[in-house]
Amino acid sequence: MQIANPDYLAVTLRSRRQKLAKLLAGASSATTDFPVILWSGKPSPRNFPHNTFPFRASSHFLYFGGVPLPDAIIRLEGDKLELYADDPDPGSVLWHGQMPSRDDMARLMGADAAFPKAALAEKASDAATILLPDRATRAEQEALIPVNEEMSLQLARAIVSVRLIQDAAALSELRAAAACTVAAHLSGMACTPEAKTESMVRAVIEGVFMANDMPCAYKSIITRRGEVLHNEAYHYPINPGDLLLVDAGAETPGGWAADVTRTWPVSGKFSPTQRAIYDVVLAAHDACIASVRPGVEYQDVHRLACHTIASGLVDLGILLGKPEDLVEMNAHALFFPHGVGHLLGLDVHDMEDLGDIAGYEEGRTRSDRFGLCFLRLNRPLRSGMVVTIEPGFYQVPSILNDPDRRASILSRPPGDDADIINWDILAKFADVRGIRIEDDVLVTADSSEVLTAALPTAPEFIEQITSGGR
Amino acid sequence: MQIANPDYLAVTLRSRRQKLAKLLAGASSATTDFPVILWSGKPSPRNFPHNTFPFRASSHFLYFGGVPLPDAIIRLEGDKLELYADDPDPGSVLWHGQMPSRDDMARLMGADAAFPKAALAEKASDAATILLPDRATRAEQEALIPVNEEMSLQLARAIVSVRLIQDAAALSELRAAAACTVAAHLSGMACTPEAKTESMVRAVIEGVFMANDMPCAYKSIITRRGEVLHNEAYHYPINPGDLLLVDAGAETPGGWAADVTRTWPVSGKFSPTQRAIYDVVLAAHDACIASVRPGVEYQDVHRLACHTIASGLVDLGILLGKPEDLVEMNAHALFFPHGVGHLLGLDVHDMEDLGDIAGYEEGRTRSDRFGLCFLRLNRPLRSGMVVTIEPGFYQVPSILNDPDRRASILSRPPGDDADIINWDILAKFADVRGIRIEDDVLVTADSSEVLTAALPTAPEFIEQITSGGR
Repeated sequence: MQIANPDYLAVTLRSRRQKLAKLLAGASSATTDFPVILWSGKPSPRNFPHNTFPFRASSHFLYFGGVPLPDAIIRLEGDKLELYADDPDPGSVLWHGQMPSRDDMARLMGADAAFPKAALAEKASDAATILLPDRATRAEQEALIPVNEEMSLQLARAIVSVRLIQDAAALSELRAAAACTVAAHLSGMACTPEAKTESMVRAVIEGVFMANDMPCAYKSIITRRGEVLHNEAYHYPINPGDLLLVDAGAETPGGWAADVTRTWPVSGKFSPTQRAIYDVVLAAHDACIASVRPGVEYQDVHRLACHTIASGLVDLGILLGKPEDLVEMNAHALFFPHGVGHLLGLDVHDMEDLGDIAGYEEGRTRSDRFGLCFLRLNRPLRSGMVVTIEPGFYQVPSILNDPDRRASILSRPPGDDADIINWDILAKFADVRGIRIEDDVLVTADSSEVLTAALPTAPEFIEQITSGGR
Repeated sequence: MQIANPDYLAVTLRSRRQKLAKLLAGASSATTDFPVILWSGKPSPRNFPHNTFPFRASSHFLYFGGVPLPDAIIRLEGDKLELYADDPDPGSVLWHGQMPSRDDMARLMGADAAFPKAALAEKASDAATILLPDRATRAEQEALIPVNEEMSLQLARAIVSVRLIQDAAALSELRAAAACTVAAHLSGMACTPEAKTESMVRAVIEGVFMANDMPCAYKSIITRRGEVLHNEAYHYPINPGDLLLVDAGAETPGGWAADVTRTWPVSGKFSPTQRAIYDVVLAAHDACIASVRPGVEYQDVHRLACHTIASGLVDLGILLGKPEDLVEMNAHALFFPHGVGHLLGLDVHDMEDLGDIAGYEEGRTRSDRFGLCFLRLNRPLRSGMVVTIEPGFYQVPSILNDPDRRASILSRPPGDDADIINWDILAKFADVRGIRIEDDVLVTADSSEVLTAALPTAPEFIEQITSGGR
């Protein structure tokens, strides 16, 4: 097990649980202080029980436990940390080598005490936990901890409060994930003109992650069909006229994610139509990033993206009318149907296991408007948050070829939409299936810092790197 | 979804279920004919529910259903096939593109009928199934199909009978997995002298899998610590004096596995001691493969490996005595503690989800002897079976540094073992931590064919490829 900054780990973990304890003690609720128990989870079986997927510890465990130990549990009470884990079976040394003992791990984490798993039973009944999505672990959790929805919610909110603001150790990890991801995208750009298929570009990009001993934070999207937002197939051939949309991010061994998208021309040269739309998306990307600072509402960043895209499409003659009216009637969502970004941390959509508790300020809920309903973050930005900024433009056939669907998206009476879309002009942009530009942005004390700034967005740089591969 | 040989698929699937039906009808049991229901399973969550591991359909489903459909079910009755699956949610088109409908899929599989999942409830009560390791699917299975251990066992045995013998479609897939794996190992050898860490070699090897749109059939072992049999860490630096043990295999998009190990010198040149032990393992590998033919007991292949290794170690002066006596007292297991191989098919340990029903001839059980107890296959070989042959030599500290452990492995009274191990000579071989050579072997009508024969085993070829990378 490779641990970055082992000396720093215990100090970081203590500070994190002190923050949590303070929030739990101060929570304005009838419930008094309670211990918190967090499970790391178990490896998930792939096709048979011994052939498991690579183990990924639960993010909450990683945040407060620091080490990706399988099948381990931590109990936090005030600023105390107890580790519950079983020593490796002596027979397993032959198969897995000498693994660190429970006591070794406890020392590394700065735990105050360490016990076998079985000892947890008598220390669990008054505690709160976060249930894991993996059912095998969840069954264990439910057997030990009585359901108490109020305590669970209180715990979830307190964890969100702590994890929303990235501390120095977290930022160091996020920077490492970002740096590896930047290098991977650069290699992907450079290899593209020689690559015959999406999967060949994927091999180069994920190969850079792997060479740095980092897994993918999520299933990469590497596709000539950029209009399929979560495309996870890679077997298509790529052709000189295609754009390749690449959304891929590394995860550090400690579990911290990057999430980056670039879109580049397979040939190394954007066509004039591709370049024109690219510039619209880039304008939105740049405007949004420039707007990020403490106190700004993230939904306003999203609105800015919508407005910039609508305005750019008006300039190109694709949309007709005033940008503000078009945004008002949701016309931008015909081409930009998703949210402008989300929280980033240990999870690529940070803390999304808690539903919208992390993404949405207390009291706010998702819009039912198409497009806006996919916005994953709706909070005022605060210094120390890390968010993605990822506007895009897509020609989605199921939207553009279906008048009823379009009508349902637009907030106005159903009818012909020739008054807002110039279909003849749009037809000239047929070689643009999807473009997205995404960076990872830290909110700083007075503005923001792009963690992935080393990866160019300017089309001429993109062309230079891509065509340089030939 | 990419389907190899779509025209051939329906014909293959029909033939497979006819074989199964015949076995179930002819089973000498009080139970009469019953329908068989097989689940494909669901994607497993990684750190949060929407961030899943890449989906891998259950191997039994893939064998009889042919297509890696998530959350689908097939019902086999006689030679009839019914598909139960829900059409993709219309809203999912935006995220996942236009997916094939249930009817498209049914046509591709040659299904006789297709229904929504809910329709299965009334067709399930008299059926048998194989429970999946994934708990979410298992809960569905258990809710629909009453436990009947006799029927389950009968079904498991019938499936094993069919899947043991690889048909033409299976062989074509196994050859594709083997070919990609051979190419990957060659690239891995060539890149090693330039690589600084295990993970850099891993990136090249798994990069070849990925470029061919094949996942890993299992977590690769790519390690300078070859004595850790299932080592899954990759962060160690590699040094010119090291051997690198690489056990990595690709899986076709249809789910068929390769499983190949080579061990090569990081510098491109074996030291004399590494070469000497390599030759012992290679002699065992070659002798075992030469012995493979129908009718041969696989445990005799294992014994041949044990004998060849013991004999080679006697020749080197590491073991003292007659090879047959040393094997009798289990001395070979001090250095070769695992079995010589296993079944290979859709699973890298084929059908290991059924315990030893696949690996062990009915009536046979695992030995309790150290080493032999890890033998995963104990059946007479038959034409059409595919097995691995993978002898090895390891210096495992937990065995070699622990007199009590050694005594427990040797079948003779405890005591000093200086009469069978020349420790001074063994000490000269300290630069050999672990060597394994593994190929995938098809039992043919009168002998065998090595599916991975294109990957050299001869040390001079290995050196040539590895040092050619510099």
